[in-house]
Amino acid sequence: MNAMTLQVVSPVPTDIDIANSVEPLHISVIAKKLNLNPNNYDLYGKYKAKVLLPVIDELKGRKDGFYVVVGGITPTPLGEGKSTTTVGLCQALGAFLDKKVVTTLRQPSQGPTFGIKGGAAGGGYSQVIPMDEFNLHLTGDIHAITAANNLLAAAIDTRMFHESTQSDNALFNRLCAPNKQGNRRFNDVMYRRLKKLGITKLKPEDLTLEEVKRFARLDIDPETITWRRVMDVNDRFLRKITVGQGPDEKGMARETGFDISVASENGGFSPHYVSSRHEAPARQNGDRQRVLMKDAINPTLMQTLEGTPVFVHVGPFANIAHGSSSIVADKIALKLVGPGGFVVTEAGFGSDIGIEKFMNIKCRYSGLRPQCAIIVATIRALKMHGGGPPVTAGKPLDPVYVTENIALVEAGCANLARHIRSTKAYGVNVVVAVNQFSTDTGAEIAAVRSAALAAGAYDAIDLGNAVQKACESATGPFNFLYPLDASIEDKIEAIATSYGACGVEYSKQAEKQIKMYTQQGFSGLPICMAKTQYSFSDNPAAKGAPTGFVLPIRDVRASIGAGFIYPLVGTMSTMPGLPTRPCFYDIDLDTATWKVKGLS
Amino acid sequence: MNAMTLQVVSPVPTDIDIANSVEPLHISVIAKKLNLNPNNYDLYGKYKAKVLLPVIDELKGRKDGFYVVVGGITPTPLGEGKSTTTVGLCQALGAFLDKKVVTTLRQPSQGPTFGIKGGAAGGGYSQVIPMDEFNLHLTGDIHAITAANNLLAAAIDTRMFHESTQSDNALFNRLCAPNKQGNRRFNDVMYRRLKKLGITKLKPEDLTLEEVKRFARLDIDPETITWRRVMDVNDRFLRKITVGQGPDEKGMARETGFDISVASENGGFSPHYVSSRHEAPARQNGDRQRVLMKDAINPTLMQTLEGTPVFVHVGPFANIAHGSSSIVADKIALKLVGPGGFVVTEAGFGSDIGIEKFMNIKCRYSGLRPQCAIIVATIRALKMHGGGPPVTAGKPLDPVYVTENIALVEAGCANLARHIRSTKAYGVNVVVAVNQFSTDTGAEIAAVRSAALAAGAYDAIDLGNAVQKACESATGPFNFLYPLDASIEDKIEAIATSYGACGVEYSKQAEKQIKMYTQQGFSGLPICMAKTQYSFSDNPAAKGAPTGFVLPIRDVRASIGAGFIYPLVGTMSTMPGLPTRPCFYDIDLDTATWKVKGLS
Repeated sequence: MNAMTLQVVSPVPTDIDIANSVEPLHISVIAKKLNLNPNNYDLYGKYKAKVLLPVIDELKGRKDGFYVVVGGITPTPLGEGKSTTTVGLCQALGAFLDKKVVTTLRQPSQGPTFGIKGGAAGGGYSQVIPMDEFNLHLTGDIHAITAANNLLAAAIDTRMFHESTQSDNALFNRLCAPNKQGNRRFNDVMYRRLKKLGITKLKPEDLTLEEVKRFARLDIDPETITWRRVMDVNDRFLRKITVGQGPDEKGMARETGFDISVASENGGFSPHYVSSRHEAPARQNGDRQRVLMKDAINPTLMQTLEGTPVFVHVGPFANIAHGSSSIVADKIALKLVGPGGFVVTEAGFGSDIGIEKFMNIKCRYSGLRPQCAIIVATIRALKMHGGGPPVTAGKPLDPVYVTENIALVEAGCANLARHIRSTKAYGVNVVVAVNQFSTDTGAEIAAVRSAALAAGAYDAIDLGNAVQKACESATGPFNFLYPLDASIEDKIEAIATSYGACGVEYSKQAEKQIKMYTQQGFSGLPICMAKTQYSFSDNPAAKGAPTGFVLPIRDVRASIGAGFIYPLVGTMSTMPGLPTRPCFYDIDLDTATWKVKGLS
Repeated sequence: MNAMTLQVVSPVPTDIDIANSVEPLHISVIAKKLNLNPNNYDLYGKYKAKVLLPVIDELKGRKDGFYVVVGGITPTPLGEGKSTTTVGLCQALGAFLDKKVVTTLRQPSQGPTFGIKGGAAGGGYSQVIPMDEFNLHLTGDIHAITAANNLLAAAIDTRMFHESTQSDNALFNRLCAPNKQGNRRFNDVMYRRLKKLGITKLKPEDLTLEEVKRFARLDIDPETITWRRVMDVNDRFLRKITVGQGPDEKGMARETGFDISVASENGGFSPHYVSSRHEAPARQNGDRQRVLMKDAINPTLMQTLEGTPVFVHVGPFANIAHGSSSIVADKIALKLVGPGGFVVTEAGFGSDIGIEKFMNIKCRYSGLRPQCAIIVATIRALKMHGGGPPVTAGKPLDPVYVTENIALVEAGCANLARHIRSTKAYGVNVVVAVNQFSTDTGAEIAAVRSAALAAGAYDAIDLGNAVQKACESATGPFNFLYPLDASIEDKIEAIATSYGACGVEYSKQAEKQIKMYTQQGFSGLPICMAKTQYSFSDNPAAKGAPTGFVLPIRDVRASIGAGFIYPLVGTMSTMPGLPTRPCFYDIDLDTATWKVKGLS
């Protein structure tokens, strides 16, 4: 129970109006509920705190609570309310069933907040608050990732520039410049490089001319640079750019591009990868990035509208990365709620995307095992999968979506059923949640419930109690979709089969990359498919539960820092654009109250 | 007096080692010293707090303390220790003379911290701590400025793209899309645009085809876009780039570039300009930027090594902007110290740059008047101005700089004398501070002191007491260098004359721009010269007190949001680069203590 009294009003006000109508508890009150003492966290204003990593050692002896992951069916472009369901479930467990509960969410990217998508704090009476702080800046982690990523990018280009304009000796003399006393020395970074080059000398003056050359020149081939710059803005004009066109950088112009910050390899960092290992050319400077990310490693504590605790941490995109909150946040949360308590975490998009990566990448690295998975569905999305007309953001819904149509719902349940079966295969109990709208009818909901049970769901609809029972009755064992020691191709094929594909087709480029990564010894990494969220297949228009398609693999890349290989299925943009009418048209600051308005 | 005991050790350790050797006081202790109650600030960790703007209303009735500005002579590339002197003076006033004191500094740009310059928290036993938090991220204000700046940049390019690919009606239908109920409406932003276009209709469906076209098309001429993207990284390869080269943006490629974030017009915001007014094409979206900057308006409270309070706020560069901390920070600080107390603020580079802009731009907007100005000199820089060999970052100093040479010092005092006279002309008492090095001799210091007094300085050397007396004996009146209603040319010429120039030469481009801004009604703004900091003239090699030169004005631009016209004197880079051996080679995280090492 908590101190806040949430007044439910009809008709339901806008998200930001609901969020602003509640005075959040001071975050130290939320921390106290979790038995965190003030040394365990740093305040960031009144309503956010960063929980400090050493707490994990203090909690070592404690047992974990139940671990619940929330995924969804294949969504419409409007989203099916996975965050809303996640937050709502935690409010139900915490405020109504009086359980210890922590919600763990990834930090939303600011770019889409101002674009099409709007905020990601949940909705209606199930929100993380203050929702403007959740959606904008938070505690600066994504800004830190951006800064670290771009420092490395600048260092790579500038190093090539300096190497192109200076002699071996000039370069070396600058790299190992004498100090005020006129002495030169190698520093730690340099000793590491010398070691790598097999040079055992300890003093700069002892190097031969040949060794000076080898030490001073990285000789980076611009064609091999995969490290791109990032920005947390939907800026499609930065997808492909030419840099280095200034008169001083003459002859060094190079084609590259920006990704959105959460697509940065740095965005996928986990506690195992704090000292993120980077791709070869970046190695010499890479470690410096952690200086900029030292606070970003601490999860941010916030609260729901009902005053239950929420951890917000890291922000990888689900369609191109693993789309989950951090391992460290989940681990701390599981100790804090303890036995009988619940940690509910969200995995992005449908189970083919979010839950698959949650299980095979995140759980593999963390060693944690969920007892229960939730599949969120809406009547709207099920009707679309059943053959309803396209659902488009910014356009009014076709009447079929707001009037009872049981046949469409039942047909669409093929999509739900495949998500249930795929998820059950991991050895967890599956509960189906319908995020209900006022236009949904009892008969439509009943149709979903019976289809869900028929497909093997543990329960559906009455979420709070169903999740509790599903966790308590979990038996395991837990199964991964593929073993890590399978080949890259076998792993990709296992995932493709779970999508319903009858085969996989690799481009020449993909084959070349797989060969290269295998030779480099990276074939033991898990796979993170970069695929559209709008279909089980690569074709966003193929709704329901498509079969008989061949999954095309256009390219294969490695995110060594984050710890996975990511095949590109078709064309995936790593930098969204702004629509003709972006969300920011409606977002403004109320200068009287200093509150944000218009955010949804 | 304060609770910390600073142990002075010989030889003096590195800056970061000194900074890390002191356990800072919890920032709430510092806030309490200033009689701030917990409602007046938000904590950001244990050692930083944002002081909330409404405090200024609570303090309205109080009288101000003394206002002291710290400038310098024309610096060497090594810097002359202005921040160190500023911090040291405040430690002397606060901890030793037991005065109420607040230091106000601008936030350093993170870019140069990793480049050549290193940190900007002062040095030795005169530092702002924690110095890594001061230099990296702080409370995210520059990140907020970056995000807001780049959202606008993306909005401009994307709008041109959408206009080029859509018909008038398609554009209009997307801009005013029907809501779920099928109704369309204009929102606040749109009503503003309609008003500007002279269209008085209130409903989208009432617009004529011609009005739809006028409303929906901004018809931005890409040639007129002056808004550039920004990044807080020294990335020379972004100085000139081509954007929009992706296949989807075909035909829309455009040359542009990035500036360092602190060169953003947003970086110069002052309390008068929270709802920053922007250049014409940006107008429709510009106001949305303040949503991202709503917390950046609150100054950050930190502390010195002796536990005296420091406000850190906004980060404009001094050579291309005004280079001062914010007006709002100074105003709050002056009330908090009250009568008899001191607010010491730093102005960037030499008096020709920092103090000139402080007086004529910042004091003009704030209405505040300093009682005392400090000119910081070093024996090293004076010797350089007296004819010593060049001083270069990263190279050992010539022996002349570390052995007694009174003749060089005396010759170099011509530079000091001009800074003193220019500053005295504003009607303030000038105190000269010598930032002393162990190699300086008593006779050299004495030479500076007598030259300073001869040039009209109120006092020199014994800083704490001298500043106190200079403030108490201040009589005024305060004089600006130029009246605002003078023409742009007359204002530029007044400043040029104060530099020692015998005339001004305008390029065709500069003349064109002056004419345009005058026609647009902006000629009443103050002038912010973008000039090298290394000489009174436009030629960085002209040391001492050059005369008889003609100052070239290459271009003239307007920063309407920040509220000034800025002429470009010669070529000024708005994006620094990384050197061959950047500072970040030595910066790393100590993973045992989680402290930053190697920052200077």
